[in-house]
Amino acid sequence: MDRASLFAAIQKKQSYLCVGLDTDIQKIPSHLLKEKDPVFAFNKAIIDATAEYAVAYKPNLAFYEAMGLAGWESLQKTLDYIPKDIFTIADAKRGDIGNTSGLYARAFFEAMNFDSVTVAPYMGEDSVKPFLAFEGKWVILLGLTSNAGSEDFQSLKMASGLRLYEQVLETSQLWGTPDNMMYVIGATKAQQFGEIRKRIPDHFLLVPGVGAQGGDLRSVSQYGMNPQCGLLVNSSRGIIYASSGADFAQKAGEEARKIQQEMAEYLHLFL
Amino acid sequence: MDRASLFAAIQKKQSYLCVGLDTDIQKIPSHLLKEKDPVFAFNKAIIDATAEYAVAYKPNLAFYEAMGLAGWESLQKTLDYIPKDIFTIADAKRGDIGNTSGLYARAFFEAMNFDSVTVAPYMGEDSVKPFLAFEGKWVILLGLTSNAGSEDFQSLKMASGLRLYEQVLETSQLWGTPDNMMYVIGATKAQQFGEIRKRIPDHFLLVPGVGAQGGDLRSVSQYGMNPQCGLLVNSSRGIIYASSGADFAQKAGEEARKIQQEMAEYLHLFL
Repeated sequence: MDRASLFAAIQKKQSYLCVGLDTDIQKIPSHLLKEKDPVFAFNKAIIDATAEYAVAYKPNLAFYEAMGLAGWESLQKTLDYIPKDIFTIADAKRGDIGNTSGLYARAFFEAMNFDSVTVAPYMGEDSVKPFLAFEGKWVILLGLTSNAGSEDFQSLKMASGLRLYEQVLETSQLWGTPDNMMYVIGATKAQQFGEIRKRIPDHFLLVPGVGAQGGDLRSVSQYGMNPQCGLLVNSSRGIIYASSGADFAQKAGEEARKIQQEMAEYLHLFL
Repeated sequence: MDRASLFAAIQKKQSYLCVGLDTDIQKIPSHLLKEKDPVFAFNKAIIDATAEYAVAYKPNLAFYEAMGLAGWESLQKTLDYIPKDIFTIADAKRGDIGNTSGLYARAFFEAMNFDSVTVAPYMGEDSVKPFLAFEGKWVILLGLTSNAGSEDFQSLKMASGLRLYEQVLETSQLWGTPDNMMYVIGATKAQQFGEIRKRIPDHFLLVPGVGAQGGDLRSVSQYGMNPQCGLLVNSSRGIIYASSGADFAQKAGEEARKIQQEMAEYLHLFL
């Protein structure tokens, strides 16, 4: 999916919501456990209930990998089930030397046909470029993450005066374009969105951490939005585990709708 | 496997060789393609031919993940086949927020029973700690990698005066101990091993890049060895693709033996 199509979807749905499919078999409603593939049954119901309000789905690969072969089957079925006009993100945070990153790229872009994959920047350009070689696909590079550990290295000052994550934004802009690269920017640092936007005005930002991790959607939207919206704001647990009962899908839909309505307001105010 | 057992294996085999099982189905001898699981058939023959000379095996997960479900089956069979007294490394370079890293840890340490997993440091302490919570298991943290992209961020100077990878070594020493943490240190920077050893005298270092990537085993050994050897030096392509014919396993064994004999000499000289 290209940038114009993504923006068109955002305008049509009045939403920039990404639903994180971090599906943990230990947390799904017990009545699903008798299904042949409980994780897929859960995801299918969540997708049915939220597709109207979401422009992207983001399975975190760890949740599927932790289940071994069965997990990869659930993931493939989930990906096949997601409507084709919704952007898909393999939240994999991969990154390896060049030829090896190329294999990961093939795994996510060809074997599984994701639109995008999250990539870690630590190993530099030749670990990221192989992902950018796929026409019509996206790299979502880790910039500033929303966890406490982002203070350990990402926020440290470099000799250049930039913080490490700012250096990552600067350097990596030469590798791709706003048409094949996005950045992960954690929502717990809403005050930094303005500065980040000066540095990368055009790129889409994938913003985790709204909801369970405590980010503030209004300030993220106010300071992070650009003329093409430029935001995908993720919510995982707040939506998919809104209820642990038989009404889990209905509650997930209601929760997604609530966020979408808030987003429609911010699109009106800040776009 | 604990540190003392690893050192005992090194002394017994007179080797600190790690064989990288980066098995690419497009590169294995054509006569294996009629096997039910060609990748496992290849790995099995390589293990049979090299086990005498190797103290560790390191499958890079990308090669298996790129093959989808079949790849994970080949990986599991390979891991089950590796003799129990040989250290195993899941070269996965994972790293995610805390609860998610915990899932990756379960995948590699419980579902698959690897001894260790490579982890990327960019997301900081809470992305690494969940791996350290597993008794008897190891984190191998990326320090300085052997690819060109290591210049992009890892080698940059911080405001503190340290380079980023030095900062990673400093900070991460507080998270684990030499008994549950190792570091990836790329062999193309042999001159830096002395400095690195001042900073982390006791930790084992996993050294990629000897062989196809052009590192120099002698200088790595001279400057990198500590009183418990403290080195695992990896070779992948130079061993497993030593021949592309029917004699691939024999040639792999000869190549591994050649490296082992060189290592025996360096253990004599530098230990």
